[in-house]
Amino acid sequence: MAKKYVSRRNLEFMLYEVFDIVSLTRHPYYSQHNKKVFDMMLDAALKLGKDLLNPCFEEMDRRAPYLDNGVVKVHPAVREVMRRFGDGGWIAAKFEEKYDGAQLPYMIADCCQYIFTAANYSASVFPGLTAKAARLITSFGSEEQIKTYVPKMLGGQWQGTMALTEPQAGSSLADITTTAVPTAYDYYLMQGHKIFISAGNHDGVDNVVQMMLAKIEGAPAGVKGISLFIVPNLRPTAEGGLEPNDVTTTQVYHKMGYRGAPITELSLGEKNDCRGWLVGEPHKGLAYMFQMMNGSRLSVGMAAIGISTAAYYAALDYARQRQQGRINPDPALPQVPIIAHADIRRLLLFQRAFVEGAFSLAMQCCRYADEETAMEGEAKERAALLLDLLIPVAKSYPAETSIRSTSQAIQCFGGYGYCEDFPVEQHFRDTRIHTIHEGTTGIQGIDLLGRKVRMQGGKAFAFYLDEVRQAIATARAFEALNPYAERLAQALIALEKTTAGLKTQGDQQGSRAMLADATLYLDYFSLIAIAWQWLLQATVAVKALAVKPSKANAQFYTGKLMTARYYFHFELPKTLGLAQRLAERDGLTLDMESDLFAD
Amino acid sequence: MAKKYVSRRNLEFMLYEVFDIVSLTRHPYYSQHNKKVFDMMLDAALKLGKDLLNPCFEEMDRRAPYLDNGVVKVHPAVREVMRRFGDGGWIAAKFEEKYDGAQLPYMIADCCQYIFTAANYSASVFPGLTAKAARLITSFGSEEQIKTYVPKMLGGQWQGTMALTEPQAGSSLADITTTAVPTAYDYYLMQGHKIFISAGNHDGVDNVVQMMLAKIEGAPAGVKGISLFIVPNLRPTAEGGLEPNDVTTTQVYHKMGYRGAPITELSLGEKNDCRGWLVGEPHKGLAYMFQMMNGSRLSVGMAAIGISTAAYYAALDYARQRQQGRINPDPALPQVPIIAHADIRRLLLFQRAFVEGAFSLAMQCCRYADEETAMEGEAKERAALLLDLLIPVAKSYPAETSIRSTSQAIQCFGGYGYCEDFPVEQHFRDTRIHTIHEGTTGIQGIDLLGRKVRMQGGKAFAFYLDEVRQAIATARAFEALNPYAERLAQALIALEKTTAGLKTQGDQQGSRAMLADATLYLDYFSLIAIAWQWLLQATVAVKALAVKPSKANAQFYTGKLMTARYYFHFELPKTLGLAQRLAERDGLTLDMESDLFAD
Repeated sequence: MAKKYVSRRNLEFMLYEVFDIVSLTRHPYYSQHNKKVFDMMLDAALKLGKDLLNPCFEEMDRRAPYLDNGVVKVHPAVREVMRRFGDGGWIAAKFEEKYDGAQLPYMIADCCQYIFTAANYSASVFPGLTAKAARLITSFGSEEQIKTYVPKMLGGQWQGTMALTEPQAGSSLADITTTAVPTAYDYYLMQGHKIFISAGNHDGVDNVVQMMLAKIEGAPAGVKGISLFIVPNLRPTAEGGLEPNDVTTTQVYHKMGYRGAPITELSLGEKNDCRGWLVGEPHKGLAYMFQMMNGSRLSVGMAAIGISTAAYYAALDYARQRQQGRINPDPALPQVPIIAHADIRRLLLFQRAFVEGAFSLAMQCCRYADEETAMEGEAKERAALLLDLLIPVAKSYPAETSIRSTSQAIQCFGGYGYCEDFPVEQHFRDTRIHTIHEGTTGIQGIDLLGRKVRMQGGKAFAFYLDEVRQAIATARAFEALNPYAERLAQALIALEKTTAGLKTQGDQQGSRAMLADATLYLDYFSLIAIAWQWLLQATVAVKALAVKPSKANAQFYTGKLMTARYYFHFELPKTLGLAQRLAERDGLTLDMESDLFAD
Repeated sequence: MAKKYVSRRNLEFMLYEVFDIVSLTRHPYYSQHNKKVFDMMLDAALKLGKDLLNPCFEEMDRRAPYLDNGVVKVHPAVREVMRRFGDGGWIAAKFEEKYDGAQLPYMIADCCQYIFTAANYSASVFPGLTAKAARLITSFGSEEQIKTYVPKMLGGQWQGTMALTEPQAGSSLADITTTAVPTAYDYYLMQGHKIFISAGNHDGVDNVVQMMLAKIEGAPAGVKGISLFIVPNLRPTAEGGLEPNDVTTTQVYHKMGYRGAPITELSLGEKNDCRGWLVGEPHKGLAYMFQMMNGSRLSVGMAAIGISTAAYYAALDYARQRQQGRINPDPALPQVPIIAHADIRRLLLFQRAFVEGAFSLAMQCCRYADEETAMEGEAKERAALLLDLLIPVAKSYPAETSIRSTSQAIQCFGGYGYCEDFPVEQHFRDTRIHTIHEGTTGIQGIDLLGRKVRMQGGKAFAFYLDEVRQAIATARAFEALNPYAERLAQALIALEKTTAGLKTQGDQQGSRAMLADATLYLDYFSLIAIAWQWLLQATVAVKALAVKPSKANAQFYTGKLMTARYYFHFELPKTLGLAQRLAERDGLTLDMESDLFAD
């Protein structure tokens, strides 16, 4: 039996029933597509996952990349992945047709990306990062740069990476010290160290292109002096060849999980011959990078959901097969599958409520991204603001919750779950990275409460309240959904009150006081956002059940309603404690000076 | 600088200031001890941890045990650990003097065990398990059995193990099928398979002695037919030698963490020559095993706390040294240690509130165990009941919370925490076993709500309420503690109400309905139990601050009060959502049939 790690039925439910992707094709930008194209994409992505990515899921973990004579040796499957993803147009899926891209909606492209992360997260990172790096060049690079790099990257011959972090400047980009010295030519000479570069200098491609943040000599201090450069490992020569660019890989990190992808440390310009090409204008590097950050953060959230989905289906499959214990304690009766036990069902319901709820929020964000791309005027602006507001939620809620979700998958297996014989222990290790990379959870909390909720005088937040209220109003028309609509309405009122209280605190005491519990605010906001998504899904399910669906569909929709019920009864109540805490605003963590951790 | 992984100051606070271990020495059973002895024990345990256990913490993980020609090869340090723990009297620490034991109170012996688990959990398991296995023999074995096995085990030459689990019977011991056939001699012939045997057949000792559950041919079905046997890997001969006992090690599991200790699969009697010696009476094996289970479960909880403590101190140390970001955003100012950031403080406070709160509950349980051991009559019965009630809490709350706590330690390190360069990723992997072994969290929830809270007409629960109320009454005398006393009093009223509601449901709808959310009840109960412990600690701290302590002590006590404040403001409010959920009693998980997980 083929291993199941995603549900095609659920993807179709999301794309066609909840978020109506086909309606996007009315806009000129997406008008060349139709449902048939989307179905074919799903088929193709599922096939790639099954034939190429999933078969080496475990082996890529067990045979982790290593440094050999300055080159990072990755699993042989990586070259095949890059080739097939390049040839198949997957790296270019969201790019405009002028770059030979498929110009696909975010919704369908990210569904496919979700399938890939569920099949094999490490493998999915190589093409995923390449697309993001290429996007930076098409957005801000020169015609020459686009011509030199983008076709090779989208074709899968060259790897793209993001090189931001430095030893002395992890989350604090203001403190990067990599320098770029202008020369008489079109390039700068680069000097510095970069750490934690995903998919750095490896042998699964013909070249690796870092999109690097650095400071031009004499630039202003802090983030205002950061510029963006293209720094390839091998630089194109005038003759059309490639030559070394004085980029040295000094380390491959040994990680707990996500081991199939190398995370490297780079040293630049040891021989003073590392050339970097400025992208766009000087000192605008951070702004450029942030334009790409929304996509990266959404991808991280999606990956956390994908990994957790795979763990959930592994646990579900095991729970249905594993015989253990009894409901009727008579030992003469046979044992029952463990899914008969209430506690196992709760563990499974939690996982399902998380993965399908969070995936729904991710699709909601993709829908906004598509509207922003395809629409004009107020509709465009509204979609852009909503997307911007929700990004920290769509990144962090999945990242944080996936730790618990994959842990509960292990729990369904008992002792076996802790062993390498089953995939869930790897899922648990793999997903732990997501609260860290592309901005830690702490940073996302500050982004949400300190920036997003307040931006443009709270305009995005007002749009958001409006969206949720609309969902509540629609749901109220169905008796079965009234209790959930009511719970969400109450939670929304509490959210408004809490947010207003925090804003007032910010006005009176400054942002440090307001942001002291920003991470908890993010938690709190997220629980309500997922409830909103479950209400949307439940509304579709109730409507579908009313028109006599097939038995299989009836089970599917009833399962959706049960999972929504679980969410509203087991998860949403977690807001009660958080609301109480956030109302206190007593600055406890500000008072807790380092010395008081003494003993 | 030596790595810190436990706080001696906190151990002294617990032993001498909160739980007054010295008062135990008034009882004849503990009268040979005094504070000086306890201090020496702490010194010796800290030294063992520093010199022997901690130096091989990482290496035991990287060089995991493997099967070689039927023998499990463990790290060479294991033999040294067993030798030193045997020679030093650590394995026999809690045993009566007649067995050459030190007859030490649980409180001090378990403090030392906690130090060992913090230093190197895998290494601590070998002597720890041996003591538990030997205890079964001294409690229920014959004089002959005691003479044959116990001195070698307590001396560290022979390893003891527990062999309960079988492939078809994980948590369901009723279904074990290992059989024991009587012979004309004093032994039975054993046939069967056992899995997940910690510290099975390894080369760090001269012999391994399994305490094994099996069924005598023709025994009653279910748990009533289970007997306990001694099954050594090498059996003693009449001539005083050892000979093979037909125990075959068929597998060493590859685990995510806790890798220094081998978990093995055993096959018994492949040549029909595996001899087992019945311990005590036939068919009483499970009752015997359960008598030991309290100790085992307490040890698991303690280990989860120990591992999390080590992770906490690693994170604290890092947070004080790592410079990153600024409070004042001027980039011309130097960066600050990350402990200056509110979110890092919150991550650290969570860890501290957990490890010191849970450790306090563990010490409370040890205190009850000591009172049960040393006292008579009603006092003994009361202590025994309180211990019995709290065991599932003292096992599961640390086991579950340690996953989050070690995860938050990783978070303090950022990307470095995900790499093998720092110990926290190993702590995160190591501690994940604890919600599984010695009874999963689901089983502990059922034990608490289905058995412990109701046993003897609710007598243990009534004693418990009484204990917490006493702590509240004492705290109310101090103005600073009034808000916490009040919060705990409210939570206790809610706990009583919730418990009564569940009991009524049990009476009306049966135990399956009542136990559907038993795991959440366990969560809920635990949060309140830890609040009780923080109120006890805060009361001691307030009193100590009133009498002008030294600067270092003032910081220590103030830190305690701050952490208590954190617990009451950030953790206890989590009971609000749980209380709401537990009041619903709508049987959601019972309704969620397997088919509805369909898609």
